[in-house]
Amino acid sequence: MELLKKRILEDGVVLNGNILKVDSFLNHQMDVALFNEFGKEFKRRFSDTKVTKILTIEASGIGIATIVAQHFDNVPVVFAKKVDDSKLGNNVYQSYVHSFTKNKDYFVRVSKDFVNEGDQILIIDDFLANGCAAKGLIDIVRQANANPIGVGIVIEKGFQPGREVIENLDVKVESLAIIDRFENNQVYFK
Amino acid sequence: MELLKKRILEDGVVLNGNILKVDSFLNHQMDVALFNEFGKEFKRRFSDTKVTKILTIEASGIGIATIVAQHFDNVPVVFAKKVDDSKLGNNVYQSYVHSFTKNKDYFVRVSKDFVNEGDQILIIDDFLANGCAAKGLIDIVRQANANPIGVGIVIEKGFQPGREVIENLDVKVESLAIIDRFENNQVYFK
Repeated sequence: MELLKKRILEDGVVLNGNILKVDSFLNHQMDVALFNEFGKEFKRRFSDTKVTKILTIEASGIGIATIVAQHFDNVPVVFAKKVDDSKLGNNVYQSYVHSFTKNKDYFVRVSKDFVNEGDQILIIDDFLANGCAAKGLIDIVRQANANPIGVGIVIEKGFQPGREVIENLDVKVESLAIIDRFENNQVYFK
Repeated sequence: MELLKKRILEDGVVLNGNILKVDSFLNHQMDVALFNEFGKEFKRRFSDTKVTKILTIEASGIGIATIVAQHFDNVPVVFAKKVDDSKLGNNVYQSYVHSFTKNKDYFVRVSKDFVNEGDQILIIDDFLANGCAAKGLIDIVRQANANPIGVGIVIEKGFQPGREVIENLDVKVESLAIIDRFENNQVYFK
């Protein structure tokens, strides 16, 4: 998606040679008009499959997923929780996820009320790197006997194994921008 | 807002006599069409003041705030972080907040890059009870010499002191539904 690549080149900052900071428009301050362009593009790329629900993960996936849902007939959006939420009780699907970024393990949890058998679920997230979060969400969808119809990612780090991890689970991946490499703190796309 | 009150009565669940669970449409599964109705209503209630930015707090404020922003000319949405984020560095405004719900204290943090002097900031959140989170966000806005033009809340617990806390800071509060009391696990509005 050219508009997004342009924005990354203009406003993204590469830290320590391998971290892409895009918090001016994606995951701290959010550009809602841009998110609507993501929605149009995801709709185009997933137009061949019925979507009944969008699943994302707190926190930075939430804004993107809610805006994207408008392009899929306002289907409900569910966000998986990383933080313990006593209100969820034991009525949850959960999956154990390793975060390489934060170098820790955590559970992602979704209430059993909101992922149902037969649901056609599009998973949306801001970044794909090692694929751990997406893998956890796919696991949850399958525990519910729902169908993960695809994973829609805004920025994929193409030099990390996330895509392979998800495709090995037989789930389609669509990323709006795929980074090939960082070189001298510059971003190069695939 | 009658549509919201009706939805709370239909789908809300009162737990332990004083906790309102609305996770089927507000803060776990999200009803995007309903959020757009919130946006229209907040726009009506804050139509007298220019808004240049919307500020919310992770996680459950984010979906609401992004949809609401569409009704304010797609102004940027910034979400304050509760969790330590190494990418933020030291370039932050922060405020110390007590959570009565979770009975713990935490910092809320916003990058100094995204709240600027002169910004006209509408604060959006899902719940208002004791007002601690909103108070922290107002503090951050004022540290930046920006102007907190108001606090827009989806559900206010009218029997708790949040409104008074915010109004004592000279900030306008608008809530879409105000709960007067819970009685026999039923919700009664003001």
